[in-house]
Amino acid sequence: MPLRLHHIYHIFLMDMKQRNICTLKINTMKNKAIILNSRPEGKPKLSDFKFINEEIPEITNGEILLKIKYVSVDPYLRGRMSDAESYVKPFELKKVISSGVVAEVIESKTEKYKAGDFVSGLLEWKEYQQSDGNGLLKIDKKIAPLSAYLGILGMTGLTAFFGLTEIGVPKKGETIVVSGAAGAVGSIVGQIGKISGCRVVGIAGTDKKVEMLKSKFGFDDAINYKTTKNIQKDIAAVCPNGVDIYFDNVGGIISDGVHANINRLARIIVCGAISGYNDTSLKTGPRAEYFLIKKSALMQGFIVSNYADKFPEGIKQLAQWLKEGKLIYTETIAEGFDAIPQSFIDLFDGKNKGKMIVKI
Amino acid sequence: MPLRLHHIYHIFLMDMKQRNICTLKINTMKNKAIILNSRPEGKPKLSDFKFINEEIPEITNGEILLKIKYVSVDPYLRGRMSDAESYVKPFELKKVISSGVVAEVIESKTEKYKAGDFVSGLLEWKEYQQSDGNGLLKIDKKIAPLSAYLGILGMTGLTAFFGLTEIGVPKKGETIVVSGAAGAVGSIVGQIGKISGCRVVGIAGTDKKVEMLKSKFGFDDAINYKTTKNIQKDIAAVCPNGVDIYFDNVGGIISDGVHANINRLARIIVCGAISGYNDTSLKTGPRAEYFLIKKSALMQGFIVSNYADKFPEGIKQLAQWLKEGKLIYTETIAEGFDAIPQSFIDLFDGKNKGKMIVKI
Repeated sequence: MPLRLHHIYHIFLMDMKQRNICTLKINTMKNKAIILNSRPEGKPKLSDFKFINEEIPEITNGEILLKIKYVSVDPYLRGRMSDAESYVKPFELKKVISSGVVAEVIESKTEKYKAGDFVSGLLEWKEYQQSDGNGLLKIDKKIAPLSAYLGILGMTGLTAFFGLTEIGVPKKGETIVVSGAAGAVGSIVGQIGKISGCRVVGIAGTDKKVEMLKSKFGFDDAINYKTTKNIQKDIAAVCPNGVDIYFDNVGGIISDGVHANINRLARIIVCGAISGYNDTSLKTGPRAEYFLIKKSALMQGFIVSNYADKFPEGIKQLAQWLKEGKLIYTETIAEGFDAIPQSFIDLFDGKNKGKMIVKI
Repeated sequence: MPLRLHHIYHIFLMDMKQRNICTLKINTMKNKAIILNSRPEGKPKLSDFKFINEEIPEITNGEILLKIKYVSVDPYLRGRMSDAESYVKPFELKKVISSGVVAEVIESKTEKYKAGDFVSGLLEWKEYQQSDGNGLLKIDKKIAPLSAYLGILGMTGLTAFFGLTEIGVPKKGETIVVSGAAGAVGSIVGQIGKISGCRVVGIAGTDKKVEMLKSKFGFDDAINYKTTKNIQKDIAAVCPNGVDIYFDNVGGIISDGVHANINRLARIIVCGAISGYNDTSLKTGPRAEYFLIKKSALMQGFIVSNYADKFPEGIKQLAQWLKEGKLIYTETIAEGFDAIPQSFIDLFDGKNKGKMIVKI
């Protein structure tokens, strides 16, 4: 890796701090951050975000100073931008936004970390920030590239893994349908489904994605929901034995088409409902009671943190499959801190393939 | 028990059959039955049913002849009267209807049963019928009155027991809300909830039922959904710690009010949706995806036969609680074979308290 300007800057910075000189000057150096400027109505727009400049923080004993390296932008953040109470608290207006981040430790005043360590965790959209290390995971770039810890070995992979294995409990020979299949979570769900010996069918929004699901991720079949004339009939056609497990990332009328094809004792894993995230009115549709009773079916919502105590075993299993070549992953990587807001907005136009990440 | 006319008739009948005389005459004696005359549109009406006269059947080796004693009329039968495919097959038009029945063995050509035994099972709405005994349960009237085997020790009690314990998994101190609480299943659910150490709130449709839930069945509180101005707010008021378990017998807007009050990791047991059974159009409402994700909640449909292999242990536990006085039950008993259709129709006007049974 070539020595770049920001490396030189860090060396300079740390050298000065170690020698306790020039503290005032360091603290006035700029530290770009992104705040929530207004709560989005409908689809987020650039003006909902605002760049500000903060001081680079001074760390105290027990703390580390982190430099942001990779930022994960995810559909669920849309929910936190509204002021409605949800499973996580809403972002505060005019305050810095946070998401999954990989960062480098550039200064440490704790024995738990040393400069040069990499960590992942829920961190702020800010170039430099201090942390006491709570909630951070030390990660190893020898096992996988750093960005993988925001995707297949991070919340994305764990969401796919625990949603499918803990709620879906796939059995060999069963049929799994995945909506949002070309997305970050969906493409991993499909692969774990194949590892589990199931027939896997994906739903995605372009012919290119449909092709990629089949040729790259090993899905048995896939449907383009934007060109289908009757999603319910198309699902029936590619699932001759019905649907045993539905891993739902989108909700809405796509899901209605799948629900109409579920088998007795089906499991519907409600992971996301992106089709409704930008909708300002409460979405309505056929009531779930009827098909749930008719089929003795289960429908369960979850967030990955429900399984936090099992994260190490999940990462271990995913890393093992990754190593064995049984799992592959796709990233869409945007470049530069300034690209964060637009990359987030792009999610709602389906511009990403797999995990959307911003490399700083 | 006084010797009644029909006992004398049986003795006469069996005596003649044993002596192989007068077979022709016996077989031409009338055996009233009820057929599905037309599939109900909306609420069932008397003209959807028709009384016919059949022959009293001759039994062959391995069979028993049964006389119907108690008939269970249940909301789920409405579903079978439509021709839509469901978890059980639709009743055939112009064929005899069946439901849960307690019958007396009046003649036996198998060692498994003797005359005078009582059985419960899914049997036809017919005064006399033969059976090979498959699917029948021999019942003991010393443990509980015969009608109890159609209620608290039958499908009703087992539905309450397995729905609540297997899907709801109540933990001490949690809050359970039961809709259709004054109904057969609901009143048992509430009592098992209290035995489990939970706060139990019922929803019912008259002030009298509300009062009965509290004074008779030990519910902590109850709401009359017909007089409430805002079911959601009223639920919130009587569930200060939110709703952990919702045992839903009714669906529709009552359920919307409960769903808005569920806690994280709530369990919604979908047992019935009587509010929509007579509706000819598919009911719509708020999509479940949103509150299920928001609360990591589970919503599961079931039918009691999913737990068929555990019925003996369920009956044992229920009988134990009954014996200990921890469970009480209410029956609404109508009299006479001819009362079956009207008793069934009355269910949809909420005329029953507890299990609706017709005594023949």
